[in-house]
Amino acid sequence: MGKFIQLTEVGPRDGFQNIKQPIPTELKIRIIDKLIAAGAKNIEITSMVSPKAIPQMSDAKQVIVHVLEKHPTITPWVLVPNSRGAQLAVESQISRVNYVISVSPAHNQANINRTHPQSLDELAAIRQAHPDLEISLSLATAFGCPFIGATCTDMLLEMIRFAADLGIHHITLCDTIGVANPRQTADLLQRISARFPHLDIGLHMHNTHGMALANMMAGLQNGVTRFETAVGGLGGCPFAPGAAGNAATEDAVNMFSRMGFDCGISLDALLEVSALIRESIEPALLSSLSHARTYREFAFYDPQC
Amino acid sequence: MGKFIQLTEVGPRDGFQNIKQPIPTELKIRIIDKLIAAGAKNIEITSMVSPKAIPQMSDAKQVIVHVLEKHPTITPWVLVPNSRGAQLAVESQISRVNYVISVSPAHNQANINRTHPQSLDELAAIRQAHPDLEISLSLATAFGCPFIGATCTDMLLEMIRFAADLGIHHITLCDTIGVANPRQTADLLQRISARFPHLDIGLHMHNTHGMALANMMAGLQNGVTRFETAVGGLGGCPFAPGAAGNAATEDAVNMFSRMGFDCGISLDALLEVSALIRESIEPALLSSLSHARTYREFAFYDPQC
Repeated sequence: MGKFIQLTEVGPRDGFQNIKQPIPTELKIRIIDKLIAAGAKNIEITSMVSPKAIPQMSDAKQVIVHVLEKHPTITPWVLVPNSRGAQLAVESQISRVNYVISVSPAHNQANINRTHPQSLDELAAIRQAHPDLEISLSLATAFGCPFIGATCTDMLLEMIRFAADLGIHHITLCDTIGVANPRQTADLLQRISARFPHLDIGLHMHNTHGMALANMMAGLQNGVTRFETAVGGLGGCPFAPGAAGNAATEDAVNMFSRMGFDCGISLDALLEVSALIRESIEPALLSSLSHARTYREFAFYDPQC
Repeated sequence: MGKFIQLTEVGPRDGFQNIKQPIPTELKIRIIDKLIAAGAKNIEITSMVSPKAIPQMSDAKQVIVHVLEKHPTITPWVLVPNSRGAQLAVESQISRVNYVISVSPAHNQANINRTHPQSLDELAAIRQAHPDLEISLSLATAFGCPFIGATCTDMLLEMIRFAADLGIHHITLCDTIGVANPRQTADLLQRISARFPHLDIGLHMHNTHGMALANMMAGLQNGVTRFETAVGGLGGCPFAPGAAGNAATEDAVNMFSRMGFDCGISLDALLEVSALIRESIEPALLSSLSHARTYREFAFYDPQC
C-alpha cells in the first residue's frame, strides 16, 4: 500500500456554484488558501460562465488572479462550458481547463444549451484555438440523468473516442445526480478500459444516495486513482434536480488514509475548512466526518494486531 | 445476478434504544407491522434488558406478544445481554436470541458490565440452559472501540472459536462506532473465513464516517450476504460516544437492488416507514434515500444500454 490517491478539490467550483446567497470573493479566496494549505494541489477554483447563468461565479477573474499570484506552484483548473469561457480562461493565464458535456442529450441541453454535435464541435474548436491548453473532459450524467433516466454507454464511448482523437486523455466520469451503484461503476470502467486502455480516467461521484464512497471503492478496484471531491460535501448541479452533495473530500481522505493510501491532504486542516464553511456559508454540511466526533479519539486501524 | 441479500432489520432494537424520548408501544408496534408488510422477514424487535439500564426497552414483553400473535410466519430476533434476558425471552416464546460481546474489554465493561471471561461463561450457560434456542453472537467493536482504539483480531477469533465450539454458527461483526474501512473489512473477513470457513458471518456496519455501504460492498466481495441495517439510519450505541447511525435499510435496499440483487423488501413501502418515523419520532433521519428526491424519477440502471 502507501500508494497515492489524487483528490481534485471541486468545492470552490461545484460547491460554491450551488450556494444561493452570494459568497464574498474574500471568503472564497480564504477558503481556497486554506484548502491549498491543507495540501490540495489539484483544485478547480471557479468556472468561466455567463454571470447571468450563474451569478455566484461572476468573480471568476478575481479568484484566478489571486490564486496565480499567491500560489505559483499550483496549477489550478477552471471549468469552461464553451469557447468563450476557454478564451477568457486563457486570457487570465489559466493553463488547464475542464470542459463539460452531458451524456444525456436532455441534460446537455438544460445544462449547456447545446446539442451533442454542437458540444463536440465546440470542444474541437477549443482544441484548435488553444493547442497548448491542457483540456480535461468531464462527462456529466455518465451514470444516469434526472430527465431521461439511464444514459447510453455507447454514446459515452463515442464522446471519449472523439476527445481521444483530439489528444484529450484526461476524462472524468461524473455521477451528476448520485445514482450510480458499484456494479455499474465497475462495468462502465471495464468497458472504457477495454477500448481505451491508456486514458487517465477519473471519477466525480455525488453522494445523493449515500453510495459515493462505495462507488469510489469500485473505481479504485478498477484502476482509478483520481477522484473529484468537494470539501464539506458541498455541491450538486443547478440544472439537475435533487443532485445535492459531492463526495466529501474529508470523507474520502479519511477512508483512503485508513486504508493506507496517501492523499497528500491533512485531515485536521481540511476539517478546519469544513468548520469555516459551516460557520460562514452553509450550516448544514453533508459530509459524514464533519459530524462524526470519534475520528480523533483512537488510533487508525492497525492491521498487525 | 438476482442473488438474494438478507437484510436483518434492527431499527426497532438498535434504533429505538437510542431515542431518548419514550416511544409509545403502540407506535413501535405500528412501525414493526409496517416493516414486516414491506417485506422484512428477519427483524430484531426488542431487547430483554434491565428497564433501569435502557428504559426505552421496558415494553419488550408487550412488543414480543404482539409480534408473535400478529405475525405467526415471522421468527423475530430479540437481543439479550445475559442469562436472565435469555430466560425472559424463552418464557415469552422467543425462539432466537442475539447475544452480544464486545471485542474491546473496555467497551464490554461499559456496555454489558462484564469481563470477557464472564461474558463467555454466560454464553455457555445460556447454551446449556436452552439447548433448543437459536443463538446468534454479535461481536461489538469488531473494527474499533471508542475507548481503546484498535481492537484485537486474535481476541475476536478466539471468541468465534468459543462460540463455534458451543455450536453457535451465526456470527455478526459489528462496527459499533462506524470507523471500519473497506480494506479492514476485507482483511478481517478473510482471516475469519480462513479459520472458520463454514460459519454464517454477517455485518452490522454503522455509517458514522459515511463508509457503511462501502464496507458492505467489501463484505459482499468476501462472501457476506447477510447485513444488519436500521430503517431511516436510526441507531448507535448508548455506551459508545459518537456512534450515531446504523447503515440505513433503505440505502442498502436501494444499492443492492440497483446492482441486481433481491432483498425481498419494497423500497416504496420502506420509505413510508421512514416518513412515519420522521414525522413521529426523529425529524433528523440520517439515511440518504429519505432525503434524496430522485430515486423514483428514472428507471434503474440498464446494463444492456
